[in-house]
Amino acid sequence: MTLRTYVNTNVLLIQNYSDYSCPVANNYADNKIRSDDTVQTTVSRSCHDGYRRADRVLVKVQDLTPDKADQLIWLRARVHTSRAKGKQCFLVLRQQQFNVQALVAVGDRASKQMVKFAANINKESIVDVEAVVRKVEQKIESCSQQDVELHMERIFVISQAEPRLPLQLEDAVRPDGEGEEEGRATVNQDTKLDNRVIDLRTTTSQAVFRLQSGVCQLFRDTLINKGFVEIQTPKIISAASEGGANVFTVSYFKTSAYLAQSPQLYKQMCICADFDKVFCVGPVFRAEDSNTHRHLTEFVGLDIEMAFNYHYHEVIDSITDTMVQIFKGLRDNFQTEIQTVNKQYPSEPFKFLEPTLRLEYTEGVAMLREAGVEMGDEDDLSTPNEKLLGRLVREKYDTDFYVLDKYPLAVRPFYTMPDPNNPKYSNSYDMFMRGEEILSGAQRIHDAQLLTERAQHHQIDLEKIKAYIDSFRYGAPPHGGGGIGLERVCMLYLGLHNVRQTSMFPRDPKRLTP
Amino acid sequence: MTLRTYVNTNVLLIQNYSDYSCPVANNYADNKIRSDDTVQTTVSRSCHDGYRRADRVLVKVQDLTPDKADQLIWLRARVHTSRAKGKQCFLVLRQQQFNVQALVAVGDRASKQMVKFAANINKESIVDVEAVVRKVEQKIESCSQQDVELHMERIFVISQAEPRLPLQLEDAVRPDGEGEEEGRATVNQDTKLDNRVIDLRTTTSQAVFRLQSGVCQLFRDTLINKGFVEIQTPKIISAASEGGANVFTVSYFKTSAYLAQSPQLYKQMCICADFDKVFCVGPVFRAEDSNTHRHLTEFVGLDIEMAFNYHYHEVIDSITDTMVQIFKGLRDNFQTEIQTVNKQYPSEPFKFLEPTLRLEYTEGVAMLREAGVEMGDEDDLSTPNEKLLGRLVREKYDTDFYVLDKYPLAVRPFYTMPDPNNPKYSNSYDMFMRGEEILSGAQRIHDAQLLTERAQHHQIDLEKIKAYIDSFRYGAPPHGGGGIGLERVCMLYLGLHNVRQTSMFPRDPKRLTP
Repeated sequence: MTLRTYVNTNVLLIQNYSDYSCPVANNYADNKIRSDDTVQTTVSRSCHDGYRRADRVLVKVQDLTPDKADQLIWLRARVHTSRAKGKQCFLVLRQQQFNVQALVAVGDRASKQMVKFAANINKESIVDVEAVVRKVEQKIESCSQQDVELHMERIFVISQAEPRLPLQLEDAVRPDGEGEEEGRATVNQDTKLDNRVIDLRTTTSQAVFRLQSGVCQLFRDTLINKGFVEIQTPKIISAASEGGANVFTVSYFKTSAYLAQSPQLYKQMCICADFDKVFCVGPVFRAEDSNTHRHLTEFVGLDIEMAFNYHYHEVIDSITDTMVQIFKGLRDNFQTEIQTVNKQYPSEPFKFLEPTLRLEYTEGVAMLREAGVEMGDEDDLSTPNEKLLGRLVREKYDTDFYVLDKYPLAVRPFYTMPDPNNPKYSNSYDMFMRGEEILSGAQRIHDAQLLTERAQHHQIDLEKIKAYIDSFRYGAPPHGGGGIGLERVCMLYLGLHNVRQTSMFPRDPKRLTP
Repeated sequence: MTLRTYVNTNVLLIQNYSDYSCPVANNYADNKIRSDDTVQTTVSRSCHDGYRRADRVLVKVQDLTPDKADQLIWLRARVHTSRAKGKQCFLVLRQQQFNVQALVAVGDRASKQMVKFAANINKESIVDVEAVVRKVEQKIESCSQQDVELHMERIFVISQAEPRLPLQLEDAVRPDGEGEEEGRATVNQDTKLDNRVIDLRTTTSQAVFRLQSGVCQLFRDTLINKGFVEIQTPKIISAASEGGANVFTVSYFKTSAYLAQSPQLYKQMCICADFDKVFCVGPVFRAEDSNTHRHLTEFVGLDIEMAFNYHYHEVIDSITDTMVQIFKGLRDNFQTEIQTVNKQYPSEPFKFLEPTLRLEYTEGVAMLREAGVEMGDEDDLSTPNEKLLGRLVREKYDTDFYVLDKYPLAVRPFYTMPDPNNPKYSNSYDMFMRGEEILSGAQRIHDAQLLTERAQHHQIDLEKIKAYIDSFRYGAPPHGGGGIGLERVCMLYLGLHNVRQTSMFPRDPKRLTP
């Protein structure tokens, strides 16, 4: 009996992983799915180092274009949908954000049983198919590969999905409101997050997190080009150095420790240790019981710290230029991802200026007052006022990204350098995307004496920050920096409305799993 | 009175930071150090956005070469050493790993008082100097810039170091044993770590951590070129999923949580969520009370996970090729750093093969037995035996890097894929550098049923790993990966002997500060 006959008699062929050092086939034996040794006929034994590797080449879905027409190819993909129609079965096969139509029809190449078998493969199962690529006359609108379809000759189930999925991928990508009249479902956020492994398979999620990977890469590449050094800072710290509130406690052998609320103190120590310009990418922990669209208890901080020569605006310029390089990189290299997300979550393209707009805090307050907001000169900005100011700035300056400089000293942390010309203000700044804060930064106090005074003013236990203050006793250059929230940057760049959409496995006061 | 006269009358000029929005000068007023407004004469007011920026260009020490001879330049640097000699004062000015000799002599350009002032600047203070670059006839062996020296005309103290340093940089870089006869000191490791901000300024530390930054960059660039996606995984987790031992507990609002011992489970979930090939760089936490040269309670994991087509050796090949790219990148781009470290800690250049040597566990055991070690086939390797095997492999194959494949199943975690041909072994591997383990990895079980059985065999509470096991119920590709310890890679590549030397702010059972 030849291999082809096998297929025609509709035996489900599980790739025999035992020959590839993977025993999964055994687990299916109970389900009357037979493993098939004859598959080995395609296995080359000629590899130089003695282990066997299939010489079979797996084609990618995104490469299935008309220039492959009439070729017999192998493909590994998920069964996205399956639809039997008379003597035919249509599958949509998916790889990440790409998919292609595949069909098997009763005839010379396939038996009735094989068609039935194909129709019964559970959605989300992973299959290997051997198929001929065929051009189609009418574009297949529902697939990313619109000009070809696959005529399947063999199907192997590599990994079987359970029949009942906790959520349907097509529901999870449906725009809010759409399909409501037809009674079509959307999936609420908690269900998505509870079943994140499925939800991450959607085109929207694939696009979001591929873009997020791009943000990290653009951030680092830009800074490395500027001569920055990457550092690794500890997350377990001995004292709640930034004030003591909102900090998670860790049991550390026979004592207690804390989770770092930012790498702030360590990156400053690196500046005092002559690294000149440093950055780090890592988790940041906040024990705030905030249940909002933009707060997480654990998020990824993109942190920058640098010595400057004459003015802390050198730091602002470095950070804003880094952000601009990120925005440009996303615009130029991630259009597919941006448009994929926009299909589900429509938003205006992100606007930015070069050089970046920088306003002083007092100017911001004046704009808000002009718009009817009542607030004092040194009051902090509320979240609604930040958003309103973002809209006003966009109207006036046509940008979704700007810097608000010279915050009131009273609303900033103890290590913030006061403005030498006006002691009520400080050399500190926030940066905003679409009216929401994505970065908080400042010139830091680099003089141990002044730092001690400011810590005392904030009633911080000096003993607990001794190592930090001592760092400035042996010569410290003027320096500044800031911390960027990765998830917020991704959320706001894409015009999304919840930071949980841009955190793979979000942590908030109510969510610790998966 | 002109500026030059000021200098000649030996008034210490503190850069007036108040005009650069930095009030530090005020803090020194008490020390009778006068701020000098005349410095502003060099400040341009022409910047487009209204803030003043000095048009003064600061030259880098490493750029001080004979082609700058006779130029008047500005430089900001630390006072590395200071030595008065009759009517002259010699300073060595340092920037990171580079330094240059600078002198001021009583004469036309400087008063006796100015020379005295220069001689009294505390070591490690940061100064701005204006100086003429002069070629020297005899090379200055003690400096990195051997062909020039600086003739200083003005000196400003930017940040004053306290007079008594907790350790001397020249002691901290002295090779062990050297200078013992002359009674010269070395600095023990705890003193170095207690005063890490000073210790990190040494040429050795600067080199170590610049190389470490390079390792991260090479790791990521190689993987991004291979089509990997960077992911961010949570560090706070709800269950001690990898067995329960050695895990730190965190107070999480009204409940308890844990610190992730690795991103293992999350990167696997990303594979199940169709990301195909992923990597992450982040902290990893181990609550082990191990006080050894190679254990930390918090270290940086370079983690890889990928789906493979036919054989888990595809994963090994990807990882070993990534390591080879790192080794090549270091060899080709970090020779200065390697040689700087070697001056203090001599070691043989790191050797590697292409392709990487892969031995089976049984071969390793046979080599050890041949060398007189008594051990059973399925015993785990002790640390001394790992080291011995590393030496034997180096003798036989001339490589410091190799893979040991097919570990006994019993010594590996529950999620390790058993070897289908021999149930006593597994599809798992460790990688070694200079005889010490730097990576542990395996093919993972991608079938929920088999995973459940193996977890039960290891007596793991299934309820606690439900989300993890459920990830494999909806179609999961065969996959594998591994986790690399960044600090160990740096330590072993450089031939160092303690992992604390390659962790900026190391954490161990006895150290939580700085």
